[in-house]
Formats: sequence, structure tokens, C-alpha cells
Amino acid sequence: MKVNGERLLNYLKTLGEIGRDQDGRMVRLAGSDQDKAGRDKLVEWMKELDLEIKIDKIGNIFGIWSTEENKDKKPIMTGSHIDSVIDAGIYDGCYGVMAGLEVIRTLKENNVEIKRPLVLAAFTNEEGVRYHPSMMGSLAYVGGCELDDALDTVGIDGTTLREELKRIDYLGENEMGFIVPEKFIEAHIEQGPILDHEGISVGVVSDLQGIFWKEVTIIGEANHAGTTPTSMRRDAGLALAKINVFLRELAEQSNSRTTIGEVEIKPNAINIVPGYAKFTVDIRNSNKEVLLEQEKKFFEYLKKIEEQEDLKIEVREIASFEPVKFDEEILDRVRESAERNGFSHMEITSGAGQDAQMMSRICPTAMIFVPSKNGISHNPKEFTESADLENGANVLLDVIKSYVE
Amino acid sequence: MKVNGERLLNYLKTLGEIGRDQDGRMVRLAGSDQDKAGRDKLVEWMKELDLEIKIDKIGNIFGIWSTEENKDKKPIMTGSHIDSVIDAGIYDGCYGVMAGLEVIRTLKENNVEIKRPLVLAAFTNEEGVRYHPSMMGSLAYVGGCELDDALDTVGIDGTTLREELKRIDYLGENEMGFIVPEKFIEAHIEQGPILDHEGISVGVVSDLQGIFWKEVTIIGEANHAGTTPTSMRRDAGLALAKINVFLRELAEQSNSRTTIGEVEIKPNAINIVPGYAKFTVDIRNSNKEVLLEQEKKFFEYLKKIEEQEDLKIEVREIASFEPVKFDEEILDRVRESAERNGFSHMEITSGAGQDAQMMSRICPTAMIFVPSKNGISHNPKEFTESADLENGANVLLDVIKSYVE
Repeated sequence: MKVNGERLLNYLKTLGEIGRDQDGRMVRLAGSDQDKAGRDKLVEWMKELDLEIKIDKIGNIFGIWSTEENKDKKPIMTGSHIDSVIDAGIYDGCYGVMAGLEVIRTLKENNVEIKRPLVLAAFTNEEGVRYHPSMMGSLAYVGGCELDDALDTVGIDGTTLREELKRIDYLGENEMGFIVPEKFIEAHIEQGPILDHEGISVGVVSDLQGIFWKEVTIIGEANHAGTTPTSMRRDAGLALAKINVFLRELAEQSNSRTTIGEVEIKPNAINIVPGYAKFTVDIRNSNKEVLLEQEKKFFEYLKKIEEQEDLKIEVREIASFEPVKFDEEILDRVRESAERNGFSHMEITSGAGQDAQMMSRICPTAMIFVPSKNGISHNPKEFTESADLENGANVLLDVIKSYVE
Repeated sequence: MKVNGERLLNYLKTLGEIGRDQDGRMVRLAGSDQDKAGRDKLVEWMKELDLEIKIDKIGNIFGIWSTEENKDKKPIMTGSHIDSVIDAGIYDGCYGVMAGLEVIRTLKENNVEIKRPLVLAAFTNEEGVRYHPSMMGSLAYVGGCELDDALDTVGIDGTTLREELKRIDYLGENEMGFIVPEKFIEAHIEQGPILDHEGISVGVVSDLQGIFWKEVTIIGEANHAGTTPTSMRRDAGLALAKINVFLRELAEQSNSRTTIGEVEIKPNAINIVPGYAKFTVDIRNSNKEVLLEQEKKFFEYLKKIEEQEDLKIEVREIASFEPVKFDEEILDRVRESAERNGFSHMEITSGAGQDAQMMSRICPTAMIFVPSKNGISHNPKEFTESADLENGANVLLDVIKSYVE
């Protein structure tokens, strides 16, 4: 039994036409009109497969395939998200949901009798672009944050997620965690260069990096660039630079990934020493102890710079997620399927945050990766070969089938 | 013979009330309505002293005191500028013009018969905030740039200096350089901390730092912060950081001043490795050879980073001014006057660019500095003690008197 690669690609391409702005950019941001259009199409497809639609109180969509006989058993769940960043590609998240659709379609077509329900999920606001933080729908679903706090999050456009979900008619009634799956399996593009670089078709995602997200504010003193001697400067921009260089050293020492991605300095004028800098810090490692050790070193360094450069440094925690180890038993089945099908495969760590990371808090969970061309993601150039898309979906089919049959 | 300190302060405070926005911020930006209001008041004061008003083709204002006997002799010129940055103080530039007014008033009051004309100048757009570069009026006046290029400069608000000067009625008829002075002497606040720090009243400005202003653009590759291994990153933000740290080391090695004051990175998102950085570089030294050597080292370092981090780095020159040595003979008179009056004084380098720097290209030129409290400038907190303002003006009076009597 195999999925139909052409149908899968068609699902992805059709969804990939929905949710673009007037410049043709993919902008299916959570709770937007574009998001609604994507959701409506997904629900339509789910209904075509006779799935029962449930929307929960944070807008997560569940398409349920159950029978009179198995309806009281814990279901196998698969899925991902269909919201996007600004100017996105068509694979991130969507692949996991469309692969799930195609798997269910294949199982139904082959008249497989399922012994437990099968659920396809599309989680709300995984990207976190419009409403921070990311993975909000799955996080709230597993009880990782208060539902009301999540719904009342004020977005970058001043709206709240609650009012926007209501407006687009996706503020549902089901409680958080109303379905606790037996297993959760998510297929996803790698969003990184490793599989493509190694020429490998299937990533057996063994774990997921823990993440620290912090916002650092440095208060120094703005001064004239020409008249202020070096010894009398309190340059917030220079301190930011030193911290950036330090973080890279930290990453190299311990195989972490560190990034300063967002930067603002003031007054931001050619001839004024910056008196203020605000920036974000992203530190990731799949080992919890290493991550905590790095956080400690980071804070020690800030302290040192604060004294050395006579500055005031404040740190606000934006998010903190522990590393996740995925379920060995599911991973074995992923590996076995890849072997049996003759797909090249390798163990890989998810560098990105994922809905599966949240679901792992309530049930055995694992992920399947397919390659991203040149590692490019969150970009219209995001691309995965059709063969890889099909291979990943066939592995997903095998693993799900092994659990429901 | 002494200036009247109270009158001088009154000039400064009256001018300091003119040109504020609805939030009370000083915004006498070149060519603006606020600039017009300041210019009108200055012209009114010049006329009160029977000065002949001339406006040149870039809006520089000259108030001329000459007699039938001396009108063919080269004049002594003093002055500075009255345009301001956004949210400025009331001393920068204005002090030099108001001190000139008070000096002329004092000379006239004491019926001094001048042997050569005395000219008070207020140069257009010294600050360069609205129209780049700074010191535009004096630069064009001495032939350092094409008049038409300067007038056609498009400002940050999309206007040109030409249309704005015309609109506020200060696009005059006199040619660039129509008066070539015998000497030019400019009084100015230090805009730096040295005199205040040392407790000195008068700065004998021996020279002025040369300046390189450059805009650097770094093209790397934007990538996912979680999924892109350190070894595969082309982080434009990190390169910027390394360059900032390098520039500070350069400054410390050779007593230069280096600043990265303006920074933009893209896409500027917490979880994306910056693929683009644009920033300004300000390097100053009063020794031309050292400055050139530093520029060379800077370019070598860019080359190194470009290769090391696999980036593309482009540099655009914004401005380049050689260091200036001021005229020893004028400086001797400044020193003598300070001595005679019992004012504490010291030799000092101007870290900031000045109109005097441009005038030094066409005549012997020097400057007199008075202290700035804590070195603060370009800020409403800019402050100079009344006694220092008065002392500086008395030195200016002595020096001018010694040349015109």
C-alpha cells in the first residue's frame, strides 16, 4: 500500500495558492482572512474524506475518523499546522497536514479497517508571527499555558487572537486536551540543510533542541561620536557586538546554535555613540544540562560587560522550552519503514520548534523529516522534491497503519 | 573693554525659544519654518546693529559692518550656524553667532573705529540632519562641493534644500565665496567632556580631527536560527559585531575615535539568522597619516571577514574630511587673551566637524571652545555656564579687536 504522490502534491499546491496577498506573497498568518481561506479548504477536504470536524477553543482543527466499534479507544493523531509566516513557502507545516490527509485517503481507499480512531490535526498559530509565542495552539492544547492568556494575546496589529478567531468563525467549543492520543506522529520538512546536504530522503527525528529566547536591553549613554574620548564612552552598540561575538564562541564550544536575530539601537545616527540597544537572543541545544550551562555562562558574560563598559543590562525571558526526546518505539517503526522501502534515512535533531514538541507532553510522540533544498525555509524559495514528499508520506502511512490496523 | 554677559545670555535664550515643535523640542532643521523663524530673528538683530545683510545662493547669512574707508579691505569674519538637530539644546552653533553679535555690539558701543570690515556669518545646514552631509553651507561656500549638487540634495522628508530655502525666502543672490576673509574665528561649545572634566574655561582649538564616514552593507544569507548549523551560517549581524569590536580595538591602538552609530539588519526576526546588515562607520583622528593607515586596516579587516564568513561586503563613502591644523598666529592671540583675562585655558582638538574647518580652506582660521557640562550635546540637556559663555565671548572680542583696530 502506497500513498499517491501526485495527489499529495496537488493538495500542497492547491493549499499553496490560498492565502496570498496582492503582491503574491504567502501570508496565511494566524486568524487572518488568509488563514480562514486555508482552514475552509482544509475542512472541505476533511469532509470529503468523511472526517468528523471538531474545532477547539483555540481554533485547533481536528478531523476525526472513528467507527462505532473503536470510538472509545485512544486515537492515533497526526498533523501539523497550516498558518504561515509573512512571505512563506508552501511546505512548512502544510506538508504534515496534507501528508496526513493523503494517508487517510489512502487507508480509506484500501478499505483498511481501523482498530482505533485516526485524527488529523491542524494547530492554530504555530508560527507565532502575528501573536507571540509560536506553537501557541498546541501549547495551550496540552496545558502549557492558560487558554485565556493565549486568546487574549495582543498581536502585532493590535488585534487579539480571540477576536480574530471569532471573526473568521474558528473559535470552537471543544476543551483543551479533549482528545488525548495514543500516539502523535508529525511529518514536517526539515527547514534546515542537513538532509539535503547529506543527500538523505528521510529524517528520523530523535529529538528536538531546547530553546531559550531572551530580550536584552542595554542602557549606556548617547554621546557625540567625534568629541567623546574612547575612555569616556558607554557604547550600548559595542556591548551588543561583544555579546554577539561571545555567543558565537559559546555555540562553537558546545555544538549549540546561538543567534541574535532582532536588533534595535538608539538614537541610531551616524555621529552618535549608541546609548541604547535592544536585541533578542536565541540559544538552542538538544541537551538540557548543556543548555542550562550555556545560559549561566551567558549571564556571567552580561555581568562582566555591564561592569566593564559601565552599562545597565536587563534581560526579559520571552520563551523557554526544554529539549525533547522523541519516543523510541515510534522512531523504530519510522526507521523500519524507511529500511523496508529502501529510502535513505538518518537520525536528526529538530532545530526548529514544532507542535510535536508540545504534544510530547501528553503522549508518545515522534517526527518524520523530509529534506529542504539548501535548508531554505520561511521563504518562497522553500522547496522539497516530490519524491521526498512522497517517501515521507509513505513512511507516515506505514507507521500509522501499524498502529491502527 | 568687555562684552555684556547678560545681553549675550539674553540673545541665546531668546533664540532658544524660537524653532520649537508642539512638544517643545528644538527642531530648527535647515530650511524648515523653524529655521526661518530663527533666521528672521537673527537678521532683525543684525539690522539693529546696522549691519548690511547679504544672503548667498545657499542661504548663508552675512551681516557686514564696513565703512566707506575700509570697505575694500578683506574683512575679519566670525560666526557659526543656527540650524539644529532634532531635540537640540540652545548652544551648539548659536553660541558662535550670538557671541559674534555681542562682540559687534560691544565694539560699536565703545565707538571702536574698525580698520577693516567685520562680518558675522551664519552658515546654512551645518548639522546635516535634514540634508546630508553636514557643514553643507560652509562647504559649498569655500568651493568644496558643487552649489547645484548641494541645493538639489533630497532631504529625509523628500524635499530639496533649494525649494525649501526658496519657500522660506532665504535663497539669496550672492555667489559662493563672494567674501574672502582676512581671518575667520569661530567660537563654539566643545560638545565634548574634556574642558568640563578638566575644569578649564577656554579651549584653544589647535586642530580638528579628520573624519571618514562610510556606509557598509553586508550580504550574507538569512536562515532559520534553529535549523542552520553554525558551520553553515553566513550571518551578516555577526560580521557587523566583529567589525564593531575590531573598530574599538583600532581606536584604542591609535587614539582615534571610532563609532558604529546607525545599524539596520534584515529580516530582523528573533529566529532568523540575519542575512543583511547595513551600518555606518565613523573614524576620526587629527593626524592624516594615522587616519589613512586606519582606513587601510579597516578595509583589510573587511576583506578578512568577507572571506572568513563567506559574505559580500560593500562600502560606500559618505564623507571624508582631512584633519585641519588651525592658524598658529590666531591661536597665539586666543592664548594671550585668555592669559591676560586670567581665564584657565588649554589646547584642545575639535572632535566635531565645524564650519571653521571649511573656512580654513580659504583663509587663516581658528576656534575658541567653551565647556559643555558633562560633554552633553545635541540634547536639550546641553549646558554651558554663563561665566564660561562670557569668558569665551571676551576672548573672541579681544582677538577680533586686535585684528580690526
